[in-house]
Amino acid sequence: MTSDFGLRDAYAGIMKGIILGIHPDVRIVDITHLISPHNIEQAAFVLKNAFVHFPDGTIHVAVVDPGVGSERAALLVLAGRQLFLAPDNGLLKYVFDLHPNATVYHLTNEAYFHKPVSLTFHGRDVFAPVAAHLARGVRPESAGKRFDGFIRDQVRRPVIKTGETTGEILYIDGFGNAVTNIEAAAVEAFEKTEVRIKRFVIRGIRRTYSERDKEQPLAVIGSHGNVEIAVNQGSAERVLRLCAGDSVTVLSK
Amino acid sequence: MTSDFGLRDAYAGIMKGIILGIHPDVRIVDITHLISPHNIEQAAFVLKNAFVHFPDGTIHVAVVDPGVGSERAALLVLAGRQLFLAPDNGLLKYVFDLHPNATVYHLTNEAYFHKPVSLTFHGRDVFAPVAAHLARGVRPESAGKRFDGFIRDQVRRPVIKTGETTGEILYIDGFGNAVTNIEAAAVEAFEKTEVRIKRFVIRGIRRTYSERDKEQPLAVIGSHGNVEIAVNQGSAERVLRLCAGDSVTVLSK
Amino acid sequence: MTSDFGLRDAYAGIMKGIILGIHPDVRIVDITHLISPHNIEQAAFVLKNAFVHFPDGTIHVAVVDPGVGSERAALLVLAGRQLFLAPDNGLLKYVFDLHPNATVYHLTNEAYFHKPVSLTFHGRDVFAPVAAHLARGVRPESAGKRFDGFIRDQVRRPVIKTGETTGEILYIDGFGNAVTNIEAAAVEAFEKTEVRIKRFVIRGIRRTYSERDKEQPLAVIGSHGNVEIAVNQGSAERVLRLCAGDSVTVLSK
Repeated sequence: MTSDFGLRDAYAGIMKGIILGIHPDVRIVDITHLISPHNIEQAAFVLKNAFVHFPDGTIHVAVVDPGVGSERAALLVLAGRQLFLAPDNGLLKYVFDLHPNATVYHLTNEAYFHKPVSLTFHGRDVFAPVAAHLARGVRPESAGKRFDGFIRDQVRRPVIKTGETTGEILYIDGFGNAVTNIEAAAVEAFEKTEVRIKRFVIRGIRRTYSERDKEQPLAVIGSHGNVEIAVNQGSAERVLRLCAGDSVTVLSK
Repeated sequence: MTSDFGLRDAYAGIMKGIILGIHPDVRIVDITHLISPHNIEQAAFVLKNAFVHFPDGTIHVAVVDPGVGSERAALLVLAGRQLFLAPDNGLLKYVFDLHPNATVYHLTNEAYFHKPVSLTFHGRDVFAPVAAHLARGVRPESAGKRFDGFIRDQVRRPVIKTGETTGEILYIDGFGNAVTNIEAAAVEAFEKTEVRIKRFVIRGIRRTYSERDKEQPLAVIGSHGNVEIAVNQGSAERVLRLCAGDSVTVLSK
Repeated sequence: MTSDFGLRDAYAGIMKGIILGIHPDVRIVDITHLISPHNIEQAAFVLKNAFVHFPDGTIHVAVVDPGVGSERAALLVLAGRQLFLAPDNGLLKYVFDLHPNATVYHLTNEAYFHKPVSLTFHGRDVFAPVAAHLARGVRPESAGKRFDGFIRDQVRRPVIKTGETTGEILYIDGFGNAVTNIEAAAVEAFEKTEVRIKRFVIRGIRRTYSERDKEQPLAVIGSHGNVEIAVNQGSAERVLRLCAGDSVTVLSK
């Protein structure tokens, strides 16, 4: 489960109650419920980093859904031996990027919904119960009809010139580490690389956070496989005043 | 589990350790541990919204317990094919409201407690171990003695006059949506209804958040089945400066 | 699982994905992921309070790891019929204090790692997969080699003179209760004891929070078994402006 429901309200717990009422033996794992409210971009990135580490057969339920109750479709996607349930709003853009031939269904079979279906909480009434029925063995094609009109948001990629790659900060994590969309492959030689972010110049790509002195900024290939701006035992977000969307340039010297 | 133990401390985890030590196969679901410290009213409302979505046989452990160690009783309640364990302080008032003939026990059988019983953490020493024993099959009547002297806090209901219902905000969720105690039944015609809250007048009851423009206030029947004040993709709490307890009037025009 | 990964990012969820991919039947319990970033001292104390309440055979995965990717060892510790996986940085100091003859291994067998092993996220690539393999029945001695050079941080103990014990605040919990390192045994007579903290003098040790008036400071033997400074239905941290490390004296009068 990935959502912006927070952990203070009962919403995520209610979805689990619905799921366990349908399929008591299912295993439920929270990726996070602390996506910033309505932040689809953030949810897409968090889900991207998580789903590749889950086993075949996992059913991902991802609900960041500002358009709930409107005409937006509820999707079921088969990709890479996993299933994904999410509103059709771009949340699955990295799934489609990695699996361009994913099979997509529009959830239309109300037999698997929780009744009455509210217009404000499809996590409870659509996504959770359908996920539980799928986990019990319902076949994806029973849940809806094939659908090709879904949103195919483009993943933003860095601009690559000879010796220079310009991307952006995609995500800042809870440690204050800023993850960019520049992949490790863009870095030719770790020592001879320079990272420019705002008015700062960071020399070299480190292998670990602790290669730099405490509270000093550094660039590293993070666990996501991308160039990451960090501060050893500190927060790059705070020290360098970084935001998602900030431009980042990697230069080979 | 529903509590005000927070997620930073080990308290909720310790309760799970105790439970799994007694009954390794039990399934544990968190409703929330982020009830505001000692806020029994909030816990009662969150539990009310959650418990109806859980399957028969669920054992709810609800611990918001400012009187821990005092003379207040520890309760076991059988209601609607579920069990509820909680201190006797009003936390279960919506359970009693929905199930006025619930069977109530006072937990007195120390055989099912975790020893030594502290005077400051009955979540660990009373509620968790009794829940685990009940899940293993211990009969409720073995856990204590029938008890009728429990607190029957009145649920606050709106005042209904012809064409006008006056209630209050019961709860503000993490999105900043304000849930009132005015049920959908009080709304006669969605378009011809007016909601007054503080100095604001909101015309019409919408079906979805997205029926209004982004960042505009609206009234909606929320997933709780009650009139809810919201702001599309924003926070009604912040935009309209709402608090739990604020008076709300619904008028039929 | 105990970590400083937070609940907003996918890190803890990713570890669970890795674990369930290796051993789908394992039971996973979160102690907390909200340790303050890089705060090993805090993690050590939280783990200490939790682990004694978990059943035999529990595998604790504790990751607060500012030195990830450096030469610091990854440890596997057998103590008191439980297993502990953690970086060698003092996180397990209370485990070693309670179990001075614990068996310690350095995790060196890469066969049980998640590949490729990153230098920034050993929670995912070392600790989680090794834990899952151990849960499946891999023997500890297969995971690495015996190791004696681990960090044996001293646990800070109070100074005891006749009638006077001086310790410190070890931890402030989410309620604002300040837990000291002075154990209940240091208190001779509850009524005749005086606790001095900063410029405050608190008379008597209470049995429960509610023995004092609302919002009044008090001392109590907390659920950890130690002297704790609290405020009934309030926060001692805020009212008395307490911090971890503050000196506390308990006097017998």
